[in-house]
Amino acid sequence: MYIIKIGGNVIDHPDHLLAFLNRFAAIPDPKILVHGGGKLATRIGEQLGIVSQYIEGRRITDDATLDLVTMVYGGLVNKKLVASLQAVGCNAIGLTGADANIIPAVKRPVKEVDYGWAGDINIQNIHVTSLQVLLQAGIVPVMAPLTHDGKGHMLNTNADTIAASLAVALSQSYAVHLMYCFEKKGVLADLEDPESVIPVIHPQNFPELKKEGKLHSGIIPKIENALEAVSKGVQKVWIGDAADILKTIKQKGYGTYLQQI
Amino acid sequence: MYIIKIGGNVIDHPDHLLAFLNRFAAIPDPKILVHGGGKLATRIGEQLGIVSQYIEGRRITDDATLDLVTMVYGGLVNKKLVASLQAVGCNAIGLTGADANIIPAVKRPVKEVDYGWAGDINIQNIHVTSLQVLLQAGIVPVMAPLTHDGKGHMLNTNADTIAASLAVALSQSYAVHLMYCFEKKGVLADLEDPESVIPVIHPQNFPELKKEGKLHSGIIPKIENALEAVSKGVQKVWIGDAADILKTIKQKGYGTYLQQI
Repeated sequence: MYIIKIGGNVIDHPDHLLAFLNRFAAIPDPKILVHGGGKLATRIGEQLGIVSQYIEGRRITDDATLDLVTMVYGGLVNKKLVASLQAVGCNAIGLTGADANIIPAVKRPVKEVDYGWAGDINIQNIHVTSLQVLLQAGIVPVMAPLTHDGKGHMLNTNADTIAASLAVALSQSYAVHLMYCFEKKGVLADLEDPESVIPVIHPQNFPELKKEGKLHSGIIPKIENALEAVSKGVQKVWIGDAADILKTIKQKGYGTYLQQI
Repeated sequence: MYIIKIGGNVIDHPDHLLAFLNRFAAIPDPKILVHGGGKLATRIGEQLGIVSQYIEGRRITDDATLDLVTMVYGGLVNKKLVASLQAVGCNAIGLTGADANIIPAVKRPVKEVDYGWAGDINIQNIHVTSLQVLLQAGIVPVMAPLTHDGKGHMLNTNADTIAASLAVALSQSYAVHLMYCFEKKGVLADLEDPESVIPVIHPQNFPELKKEGKLHSGIIPKIENALEAVSKGVQKVWIGDAADILKTIKQKGYGTYLQQI
């Protein structure tokens, strides 16, 4: 089965998004789409006078920000994706981690920083059976980057983390292929050269690549997430182009392939 | 099975809502919750500078209003209900009619009035099987008042209509009890007297009640919806108090009972 994550840059560009959704719909295997937020939450937040604080690039989820991401990620972005997928014949169902209790989480403990309503996932607690009920009925889950605490609160959770966590949890029942899709062809050795895709990253060459300064800071947590997923049983992990997702999966040398050795 | 609809007045009052959700969670039979929007969409719309037009009390759903109701009804209100139900042990899943293609609809044809992105349901097209997959797995659907056109657009659809349409569609497979819950004990003969509940309304006494001016205008479409549902095979329909839902179902003379004769 495929778990495919798209980020904000794909969601924010209607052309990229349409190309991606058509290709996603064409994948015949069981599949799950995980989406990030895009710039919409920030824009609507500004209009509503919600000014979120950031610490080290991470948004602090206060009460107002939680409502904002719940409505924008869980409502507007999620349901637009569902309606668009339905229009191309993909029987999508839009969900958060609260729905059918798929991803219970805990509010991040306050240490040096209070991240507010941010959710941390324990992979053991993911309810794989609820997802299986849907997958077996031919229904395609579309997951927003939200979880819940089981006490009545939604929690804001990173979409990359949700994708990796679902991949690990489902790898006990399926051969899971996890794919992080964005607007580039893969992890680039030179950000100025869109063709400079690093074909393989594994725990041996990753420290070296980091040391050489070849990786921009934004991609490093994604690679760490991916390598962790591989080490925990996910069969294959790629980072590649949303619009060329089928090529990335099928053609060697297209996209960056993450492996364990 | 029970299909229970709650309106804005219940959603807007945390105490009413909590009392309702606890009682809803306690119903052992298969059940579906359908919710309206409450005042939140209007308030957030005002903050965003979205001024919806109304014609004869009905909101015109222009592009901005569609985004607004998709995020507020489909995201904020729906997911808060789901998280709250999960907290009281009810395995809720929040959905719109687009999800799993449960309620395909058509954009309302423009006649004298252009209602914009308003969706009309053809009950024959409701995908009962998707709901059955969830119900059989012990999952409780929580439906937002939204449908879709199958062409990539969400549509705004009245929650009473969604509840009645689901009730009729599911009555072919289940003995369906449909219940419209609000903040009053039932349909009142005298709005000033909260105890003046009309115990039974049927097609024979309904015209008379209307003629006597006993029914306030807001309740008339609800009664029409309810009587239509009864005539189309729904086993029992009530209008009653959200906080006393179990009493309404179990005690004679509590709430208004709609029947065919």
